[in-house]
Amino acid sequence: MRVLGIDPGLTRCGLAVVDAEPGKRGKLIHLEVAVSDAKLDPADRLFLIAERIHAVMDDFKPDAVSLERVFAQQNLKTVMGVAQVGGVVLLAARTRNIPAVTYTPTAVKAAVTGSGRSDKKQIGNMVKALLNLDEIPKPADAADAIALALCHAWRMPTVSAMPQPFRKRTVPKVKRS
Amino acid sequence: MRVLGIDPGLTRCGLAVVDAEPGKRGKLIHLEVAVSDAKLDPADRLFLIAERIHAVMDDFKPDAVSLERVFAQQNLKTVMGVAQVGGVVLLAARTRNIPAVTYTPTAVKAAVTGSGRSDKKQIGNMVKALLNLDEIPKPADAADAIALALCHAWRMPTVSAMPQPFRKRTVPKVKRS
Repeated sequence: MRVLGIDPGLTRCGLAVVDAEPGKRGKLIHLEVAVSDAKLDPADRLFLIAERIHAVMDDFKPDAVSLERVFAQQNLKTVMGVAQVGGVVLLAARTRNIPAVTYTPTAVKAAVTGSGRSDKKQIGNMVKALLNLDEIPKPADAADAIALALCHAWRMPTVSAMPQPFRKRTVPKVKRS
Repeated sequence: MRVLGIDPGLTRCGLAVVDAEPGKRGKLIHLEVAVSDAKLDPADRLFLIAERIHAVMDDFKPDAVSLERVFAQQNLKTVMGVAQVGGVVLLAARTRNIPAVTYTPTAVKAAVTGSGRSDKKQIGNMVKALLNLDEIPKPADAADAIALALCHAWRMPTVSAMPQPFRKRTVPKVKRS
């Protein structure tokens, strides 16, 4: 399955297209970090980021979108812009009939490193190893976008196949939206 | 000038099209509250609300969009959905080259009632009087959308015409985005 992982943001928005199946290594198809200048008008920034989101969806036709779930309690300075980009992502996916799922940062970390408390470096290292990359993707938004894509490709089919009581115990903090 | 005032939300999104000039009474051209069922998938909800936002922009061709500015500290349960709708509004306006301005609730209240601390009832009463309506628009999201439109139509030309030092003193808490 082809998954578009998106680490949303107005300043940097990580976009990773990964082909992956549960239990197998994934293949990185496309990776970019869309950027916008903080000096621009917020609507212009959103427009620039949205342009890349739409282009990647159209060019790579993912089967699913995996988006980081943001909480209002997080970084107050950036959270509203992140949520706005998230809204644009959900709408762009829905308009194309691509299912979009959101995952908490903890669930994503757990999916790729085995621990929900791993740091940026560990995620970068695991992403590099798992996709057989020459180097750790940078900036962190790029690695996070890949981790999001892998999290969805590996976990969701398993989660869907599990009987309900097991899902809760074995896949903590995965939240669908 | 024709202003589309938007009180953003996933459950109820107030959309008011008002023709108004500074110093004159406005005329209500269109008023609706777009709704979506809380039981639906968030992407589906966003899609339904976005559909109405796009339709109103296309049908009534506003010169400007006036959007309520949301803060991360506000109602934690709904704020992310509100921000997502806000992102969709900003992008929809930007795509059509319609300038979009955000206002704090305090600025909107001050614009239509003279006090930044007025309540829903006062806003409803003032909106009814100012637009010569037969009754107070309901729900509150509808009245708020009208107030947002009036806030922009009345204040912005004045604000723009004012020398910079006066703007700060006389128009507190108006924030452009």
